[in-house]
Amino acid sequence: MPRVGFCGLGAMGGAMARNILAAGFPLTIATSSPEKAERFRGEGASVADTPAALAQRSDVIVTCVPDAGALDALIDGDGGFSRADLADKLFVDCSTIAPHDACRAAERIRSAGGRFVDAPVSGGTKGAAERTLTIMCGGQAADIEAATPLLKAMGKAITHFGPLGAGQAVKAANQLMVAVNMMGAFEAIALARANGVDPEAMRQALLTGAARSGVLEMHAKRYLDDALAGGFRIELLRKDLGIVASEGGRNGLSQPASALAHQLINAACNAGFEGQDSAALGRFYDLANGKARP
Amino acid sequence: MPRVGFCGLGAMGGAMARNILAAGFPLTIATSSPEKAERFRGEGASVADTPAALAQRSDVIVTCVPDAGALDALIDGDGGFSRADLADKLFVDCSTIAPHDACRAAERIRSAGGRFVDAPVSGGTKGAAERTLTIMCGGQAADIEAATPLLKAMGKAITHFGPLGAGQAVKAANQLMVAVNMMGAFEAIALARANGVDPEAMRQALLTGAARSGVLEMHAKRYLDDALAGGFRIELLRKDLGIVASEGGRNGLSQPASALAHQLINAACNAGFEGQDSAALGRFYDLANGKARP
Repeated sequence: MPRVGFCGLGAMGGAMARNILAAGFPLTIATSSPEKAERFRGEGASVADTPAALAQRSDVIVTCVPDAGALDALIDGDGGFSRADLADKLFVDCSTIAPHDACRAAERIRSAGGRFVDAPVSGGTKGAAERTLTIMCGGQAADIEAATPLLKAMGKAITHFGPLGAGQAVKAANQLMVAVNMMGAFEAIALARANGVDPEAMRQALLTGAARSGVLEMHAKRYLDDALAGGFRIELLRKDLGIVASEGGRNGLSQPASALAHQLINAACNAGFEGQDSAALGRFYDLANGKARP
Repeated sequence: MPRVGFCGLGAMGGAMARNILAAGFPLTIATSSPEKAERFRGEGASVADTPAALAQRSDVIVTCVPDAGALDALIDGDGGFSRADLADKLFVDCSTIAPHDACRAAERIRSAGGRFVDAPVSGGTKGAAERTLTIMCGGQAADIEAATPLLKAMGKAITHFGPLGAGQAVKAANQLMVAVNMMGAFEAIALARANGVDPEAMRQALLTGAARSGVLEMHAKRYLDDALAGGFRIELLRKDLGIVASEGGRNGLSQPASALAHQLINAACNAGFEGQDSAALGRFYDLANGKARP
């Protein structure tokens, strides 16, 4: 069994690393938190002092960090991966970053002899805990094949979408559609209310027709139920739409609806909805429609 | 059994009128087309010379016309409904018009003694032929109850959403979400392509997650399969988004995504995609992304 290294033991990464241990892989972690080091040691993991030391004693290295800057720091910071000989090491990055940032990171890893695949996940902390994550992969087919037993310890639907960055592109596309579909759902709800229609009755009726969506099923319901604590926080969707914008910018894509969603989600965060579920965009629409006071 | 009158024997209305006949209701039609008059007479309907004459010999009058102007002409034109005594007559308008136009028409009918409900349908010519239409109703509960046996001869899911105009509001909300969700799907496809991802592989993978939608299932597939002949024509969606805009304007609603969808669909119609399925919006995105030439 390949020896696995794991960096980025947050809410997602921590659960994923535990499933790797549970599947029987020898695991090394690196963390700046003495508490996390202690806890994982107690569960059977080794602890390395630096990412470079972790890489030296691992065959496959999984990273799951908040953004491209954090990944860069793991690679090129003090004691970073690039300080080690990475020949025959396979890096599996489960962070959500821009496709071109994935390509940039891959280049740095390659220049130290290693291999790299992008493998962002979706399914939230629940999916991470229950091993039901969807994992979207980009990179060389042989590398993804080599990573598959490990990916299967973390998730369920594992798809190889194309070259490096392809997994990140599909993740970005997913977030883009969720955000755009939310605008549609909340504008539909406002139109219904203005005409004396109970939005929950409308939501249920339209779930069987052409306007049905995961957003109308889940996000609109959370908004209507006022169940916006916890969940996928709106500032994370803001970050993801920043990735969509930067990727669109690099490729000269016309993305009017994504840009609008990005701006409205920015505004919702600025208006005080940070920390709430992304469906709090509906609350921002309430403000914009004079149906609430800040 | 109530005597039924039907005005508006187009692709939708013609099929609906046939189902009313098939259900055993005595039917009178009025039409300016001698061919249609002959055909319906052959199928057992009576033919009235004017809408007023049709109303005089009917208990329930169904209208299914392209727009509010056509409905106004039926009511107030030469030989229009308002020329007859409409006491105890129930009008069921299955046209797709703005909620406030429905209220205006209802007022004209009421001033001549009649009652009025709005009952726009969705499900297309297939749903009309197969009696599987979704019918969205607004108006007095007693009137909708009285119309229900007749509505059941034309459709399957019949819901009363609220006061006059409520059915039209739900229909508009449905069209709004379809149009907005289309922008999301086509921007996601462009992002995927720019990163070497097969959009059909992405579409199938994301259909099981939070980004799933009727649009990703159906409209995106029609676009990817280049199956844009027939179907629900993009200029009809343009008209429906005009209703959303006018309704939003009347109520001072903030509808940024609907307005954007309206503008892009306008542009797509102007760029030459009139007559194609509404999913031709994806072809307009191709133009905007330099992936096609006009």
